[in-house]
Amino acid sequence: MVKSSQSPVDLVIEARWVATVAANQAVLENYSVVVQSGIIVDVLPILESRQKYTASSVVCLENHVLMPGLINCHTHAAMSLMRGLADDIALMPWLEQHIWPAEQAVVSERYVQDASLLACAEMLSGGITCFNDMYFYPQATAAAATQAGMRANLGLLVIDFPSAYANDADDYLQKGFDAHDTWRNNPLITSSIAPHAPYTVSNQTLHKVITYAEQLGLGIHTHLHETQDEIVKSDAQYSLRPIQRLAELGLLGPNFVAAHGVHLLANEIELLAEYGCHIVHCPSSNLKLASGIAPVAQLLAKGVNVALGTDGAASNNRLDIFAEMRLAALLAKGVTGDASVLPAHQALAMATIHGAKALGLDHKIGSIEVAKLADLTAVRLDDIATAPYYDPISHLVYCCGREHVTHTWVAGELRYSDGIYANIEPNELKEIVNVWQPKLSQLKSEQGKK
Amino acid sequence: MVKSSQSPVDLVIEARWVATVAANQAVLENYSVVVQSGIIVDVLPILESRQKYTASSVVCLENHVLMPGLINCHTHAAMSLMRGLADDIALMPWLEQHIWPAEQAVVSERYVQDASLLACAEMLSGGITCFNDMYFYPQATAAAATQAGMRANLGLLVIDFPSAYANDADDYLQKGFDAHDTWRNNPLITSSIAPHAPYTVSNQTLHKVITYAEQLGLGIHTHLHETQDEIVKSDAQYSLRPIQRLAELGLLGPNFVAAHGVHLLANEIELLAEYGCHIVHCPSSNLKLASGIAPVAQLLAKGVNVALGTDGAASNNRLDIFAEMRLAALLAKGVTGDASVLPAHQALAMATIHGAKALGLDHKIGSIEVAKLADLTAVRLDDIATAPYYDPISHLVYCCGREHVTHTWVAGELRYSDGIYANIEPNELKEIVNVWQPKLSQLKSEQGKK
Repeated sequence: MVKSSQSPVDLVIEARWVATVAANQAVLENYSVVVQSGIIVDVLPILESRQKYTASSVVCLENHVLMPGLINCHTHAAMSLMRGLADDIALMPWLEQHIWPAEQAVVSERYVQDASLLACAEMLSGGITCFNDMYFYPQATAAAATQAGMRANLGLLVIDFPSAYANDADDYLQKGFDAHDTWRNNPLITSSIAPHAPYTVSNQTLHKVITYAEQLGLGIHTHLHETQDEIVKSDAQYSLRPIQRLAELGLLGPNFVAAHGVHLLANEIELLAEYGCHIVHCPSSNLKLASGIAPVAQLLAKGVNVALGTDGAASNNRLDIFAEMRLAALLAKGVTGDASVLPAHQALAMATIHGAKALGLDHKIGSIEVAKLADLTAVRLDDIATAPYYDPISHLVYCCGREHVTHTWVAGELRYSDGIYANIEPNELKEIVNVWQPKLSQLKSEQGKK
Repeated sequence: MVKSSQSPVDLVIEARWVATVAANQAVLENYSVVVQSGIIVDVLPILESRQKYTASSVVCLENHVLMPGLINCHTHAAMSLMRGLADDIALMPWLEQHIWPAEQAVVSERYVQDASLLACAEMLSGGITCFNDMYFYPQATAAAATQAGMRANLGLLVIDFPSAYANDADDYLQKGFDAHDTWRNNPLITSSIAPHAPYTVSNQTLHKVITYAEQLGLGIHTHLHETQDEIVKSDAQYSLRPIQRLAELGLLGPNFVAAHGVHLLANEIELLAEYGCHIVHCPSSNLKLASGIAPVAQLLAKGVNVALGTDGAASNNRLDIFAEMRLAALLAKGVTGDASVLPAHQALAMATIHGAKALGLDHKIGSIEVAKLADLTAVRLDDIATAPYYDPISHLVYCCGREHVTHTWVAGELRYSDGIYANIEPNELKEIVNVWQPKLSQLKSEQGKK
């Protein structure tokens, strides 16, 4: 029965706990999050929300934590189809002998859209609502994200060598801007310019990147200091470490997002802090490729904004921010010898609001606060593996897995719930796998024979 | 229709892949595992098994890997109810200010049985068929494991300080032997003598441990070199590092199983290898308590048998050997800088056959081979998060989570399948949590006020 004093709204989510990830780190118990036109319009006790609002849809989460949607701040969604194609191999031979040949053989606009849709499905079911991507054919990734109903910040890729996608740096840039034009009015998609890495992009190209980023007001997304090898080569070629080279070129700034940052000297951490740069920590990928362990505790101590990423599925082999949260928190303690470093609430912040900051979207997403977009993830704590519970934030980071995600909303739209996707058919994904897995299996077996 | 030439058997499991973890590392495709009276009696192609056997039960695993049941080689099952009670705190204050006071307040025979049953449920659903435990009231853990139908090697705990369970070392030993007598004819339960750690057990007690272990033919299970602090204190008290002290006392040998081994000098690794000792690597717990990272690559290179453990749920906060396999493989690469270290098949071996070796049970469990017990786990690879696949062993270690476990058999008996336990009622577990969670929550909130 609608009381005359009640306001009509689209959606009320009544949750046992709301992990706001707001500045005060509030965890609210028995609270409702009220959504209208995709926006969070109120956060208040359940009993009050029942008095104040009448909703088209009410979702009761009796044993759940509602948290901001997770942000995967560095990935290559289209590598999902290369999951497990080559393991237990270091970065450069892995790239040169396995991944690049595979990409050369299969990557096309169709491939990227198919593989990105599979990645979107995996990410949505793991509570990820937004990803920061870098790959060929970003318009194909945009199409997949739009179908899935996910938010994505897509890199307009630039590399100084030709591919099926583009011929040279100018061609990459032009194709990127053409793609960027197609999603200008798409509320889910934003762009960065994405020079692949210091070792694959010339100074001349980086000058252009800076110019265009300024003109278009776009962020810059790159790989940086992932391996020692990269640093040694830069020293040899430019007599500069990559980060110094980028600083001298004028690339660093608050719109600069660097994936990895594994090998950083103290003065380089200072530099990143001074410029307000963002580091995306990808612990699984950095360990798996034996790149090393990023100095996350030191970065955080100096005030650098550190977000979390999965990297591509080929080097992880999961697109799972729960795994990265847990690993980031555990690793930071283990390598510093201080168990109080990177406590659970900070790991959760890295997976949410820090990611939003890196993408320049923290005014819109990354925490549960009035006037932000309703990008939300529900996680159940009524499993045997999560019983008992004493602190829901501890459980989100140390105990839960992505399998405990029950609902994922993007801008107030339910995009995933209990195994069902709003806009993706299971058969569609099966067909994608059936098309590409045999091609890549064949390639793997040929590589094995070499 | 039974053909006259067919042999009747209890169970045939037809699997897309069988990861044998045998010495030749064979992964068999479209093979059946045939079980009679709890024993694997044949492993052969599915088509042949259909000709040769008629089974009371046939299980078809069309998209699954069948692997040996996982072995959790160091845990404290009864700490499951303390999951997340205190996080982000170093080992000694964590023990002294949080865990030991909590234990003092709640631990009883009833508590241990309840908490162990919850742990058994969590472990079975995560594909673990056997655990190596150390806690007060081992007879209560035996009761829980027996109800769940799990295999357990239970430590007969010895500490040189009194508890609700026992008054002094002799009392601990006597209670342990009394417990041991109760499960002599229980095929699921075996024993080790478990001096808690070098820093909680005197030389006098350790002499008795050696004597009794020899007399009874039992293994020894202890914590060793978990933290630097432990080593510094031993140096001060005994002018010996703990491992030297144990070597001089005569404790080391092929029946000696040491959890952790985080801080080991090169000559100590040699010593462990020479004596044929076993190390149980507990990477999550070692990182979470900021103890450090065990030199697993070096241990393996010297031929030390390294198994995997979760440690207790209070310092992990999961009883999840999938998580430990993945973390062990990733960490070893990251800290050595060599991506080929600890490849997937070796991580799987650590979680299965290496654990069996540590427990002296490798003639019975740890691999899928004729004449071994049918302790088996099925893992599905038809999830979106595991698609596509190129190598099932890679997926088991790097991609799958425990949520992909569909069946767990112990000695040919199906103990867990798709959310259902053979011998544990969901309400039983709920009641356990309802009884103990409020008591421990109360304690946590009192500790918080201090």
